[in-house]
Amino acid sequence: MKRHLITLVLLLTLSVSLCLAQTALPIVEDFKPSSVNQPGKEFPKVNSEGRVRVQIKARDAQKVQLDISAKKYDLTKDTSGVWTGESAPQGEGFHYYQLWVDGAAVPDPSSLYYYGASRWGSGIEIPAKDQDFYALKNVPHGQVIELPYFSKSNNSMRRCFIYTPPGYDKDSQIRYPVLYLQHGGGENETGWSNQGHANLIMDNLIAEGKAKPFIIVMDNGTWAMTGPRPADRNSGTWPPKGWADGFTKTLLEDIIPMIDANYRTLADQAHRAMAGLSMGGMQTRVITLANPDKFSYVGLFSGGSISTQDVESAPGFKEKVKLVFISYGSRELDNPRKGPWGDPKENTEALKKAGMNTHFYVSPLTAHEWQSWRRALNEFAPLLFNN
Amino acid sequence: MKRHLITLVLLLTLSVSLCLAQTALPIVEDFKPSSVNQPGKEFPKVNSEGRVRVQIKARDAQKVQLDISAKKYDLTKDTSGVWTGESAPQGEGFHYYQLWVDGAAVPDPSSLYYYGASRWGSGIEIPAKDQDFYALKNVPHGQVIELPYFSKSNNSMRRCFIYTPPGYDKDSQIRYPVLYLQHGGGENETGWSNQGHANLIMDNLIAEGKAKPFIIVMDNGTWAMTGPRPADRNSGTWPPKGWADGFTKTLLEDIIPMIDANYRTLADQAHRAMAGLSMGGMQTRVITLANPDKFSYVGLFSGGSISTQDVESAPGFKEKVKLVFISYGSRELDNPRKGPWGDPKENTEALKKAGMNTHFYVSPLTAHEWQSWRRALNEFAPLLFNN
Repeated sequence: MKRHLITLVLLLTLSVSLCLAQTALPIVEDFKPSSVNQPGKEFPKVNSEGRVRVQIKARDAQKVQLDISAKKYDLTKDTSGVWTGESAPQGEGFHYYQLWVDGAAVPDPSSLYYYGASRWGSGIEIPAKDQDFYALKNVPHGQVIELPYFSKSNNSMRRCFIYTPPGYDKDSQIRYPVLYLQHGGGENETGWSNQGHANLIMDNLIAEGKAKPFIIVMDNGTWAMTGPRPADRNSGTWPPKGWADGFTKTLLEDIIPMIDANYRTLADQAHRAMAGLSMGGMQTRVITLANPDKFSYVGLFSGGSISTQDVESAPGFKEKVKLVFISYGSRELDNPRKGPWGDPKENTEALKKAGMNTHFYVSPLTAHEWQSWRRALNEFAPLLFNN
Repeated sequence: MKRHLITLVLLLTLSVSLCLAQTALPIVEDFKPSSVNQPGKEFPKVNSEGRVRVQIKARDAQKVQLDISAKKYDLTKDTSGVWTGESAPQGEGFHYYQLWVDGAAVPDPSSLYYYGASRWGSGIEIPAKDQDFYALKNVPHGQVIELPYFSKSNNSMRRCFIYTPPGYDKDSQIRYPVLYLQHGGGENETGWSNQGHANLIMDNLIAEGKAKPFIIVMDNGTWAMTGPRPADRNSGTWPPKGWADGFTKTLLEDIIPMIDANYRTLADQAHRAMAGLSMGGMQTRVITLANPDKFSYVGLFSGGSISTQDVESAPGFKEKVKLVFISYGSRELDNPRKGPWGDPKENTEALKKAGMNTHFYVSPLTAHEWQSWRRALNEFAPLLFNN
């Protein structure tokens, strides 16, 4: 009897274990190579659930992990020394990731590299249902220009990227409005075109007649940032006064005059916009509130909001600024922490009631990530330079 | 007595060991961070001998190596799990490298990344005595444009990079000559501006009045390459007939018409040049010999030469082509293998005797590497579009 009981218990345990194993591993085997792999590389791959499967040869390693969205997943080694493994399902869009090989954090040698999280490292694309709006298509394409220039206010060479719309070099009589578009913390001037696809978003919008053609200037907001870093988000004094002064000076004294002198811009307030994501949104907030005589359109993507009190203490802002656009990923708004400026939706509605032209956009099912910001630009651009 | 003898032998052994250790490790401790490190990274470093010192944290690894110029160097681990080590002295200029962590070949997470050796991976600069000619200086700068375009002959989207000289966008009346400049095997359209610094070389030459301003087009010669790969350099039939046909078609039918339609070019044979390094030189050779009605200036950098027999069987080449420029790194010429086209210097001299304008350049103390090709461009560019 006792033997039978033990057998029964063992069988039950086994069944439960099998069930658990099955529910823990429902991986759909329809993996395809990531669209941002290095040429000729089969891995990393992504399946229809959004899982990321990586592979790397490391014959003598004891432990290899995939590190994505702040979680590490163990890989397993086959007899030839090749390690393979996959993550839980990831959200749609672009994600940074890395590999760990016996304690070394390294880029995946099979992926393309992007600047974010303060380093050049691996990136991956989870195909999104709406990916068509930033896809590379056979439509007229604008240029992305890399330009080194000397900055007097920093006494050093700097670099910016400039998007010019399709046909810019064909008809030299036309002048264009300009959007100054800033990256986030730990990113740089390459982000908006590399992982943001700002150029493809604009090319597609223009091809469909949904946006006016304009120039986009993407510069580095980090290099020139003086004062304390945005270290403590919960501190009442954050962001500390003056934290954006360095970039403000560079933008107003170096970048804008340089762009207006060298490109066919419409060089007035009515034809100048500024937007940015995260830290770039916070810079946009500070810079446009202080300079409403210079910017007509304002976009903050996951980077705070503008309150009626802000506007009341910014002379000219209410009269001169034609659009305040605020956006967030829906998963950012799930987070009860609303930032130091209060609830962004309530702020934006109050601003509208006070008579300003505002637009509040929420990116569905995305967090503080590039898919939110691609969508934000796609919503923001059609609203620009229509007045 | 016996004890004294043993002591003497031990002392002698110790002295000899110390001497050997000293001659084996004459490392000069003047390492400085590489100029192409990721922002804020102290390592990799380079010393005045040209040694490369790398550092990576890998607490649980058993073996970590630096792999540069086809040689692997063991790193040593300190008590905190940080591995450090250095290479033998490297030649001046740019080199690709990678790290090995317990059998995994990975990019160094501290370096910038470049496309070469058929992958995006780590690169390092050994400061060169003549580095001034490709340095980023406060002179008027041209643009490097990234342009996506549709290629009919490939029925796909492609990408090219276009250098426009300083002032291109300021005066819309001026038209410019064009140089089509190709990368080598295992590289792509990013090579000439990223690791080649073609744009900075031109900016500096133009600032000093040493070269005429012209447009440079850098496209991908690999994507469209049909036929057998240049696998067997020693085979009598290499390169096989037709190997460059794919890129020839793409260049003549898609790239050149697209550039002439969208940029302010002087769209005739007299104002069009072609050059390339290694595989790109071989493509230049094939394409210009077959199309002397399209190109006036021809540059082969470490990519073969042109013989009098080649010219005799290429109708119009002798009459129409204004310059044949052949260059090599001196260490390539030390190699007795002269390539399938005979000795490049003898070929070039014979061509000059036959009445063509030729130029033969040897880059001092460099091999089949970017320092040879930077210097080649610096010598070639001043000779262009002067006739």
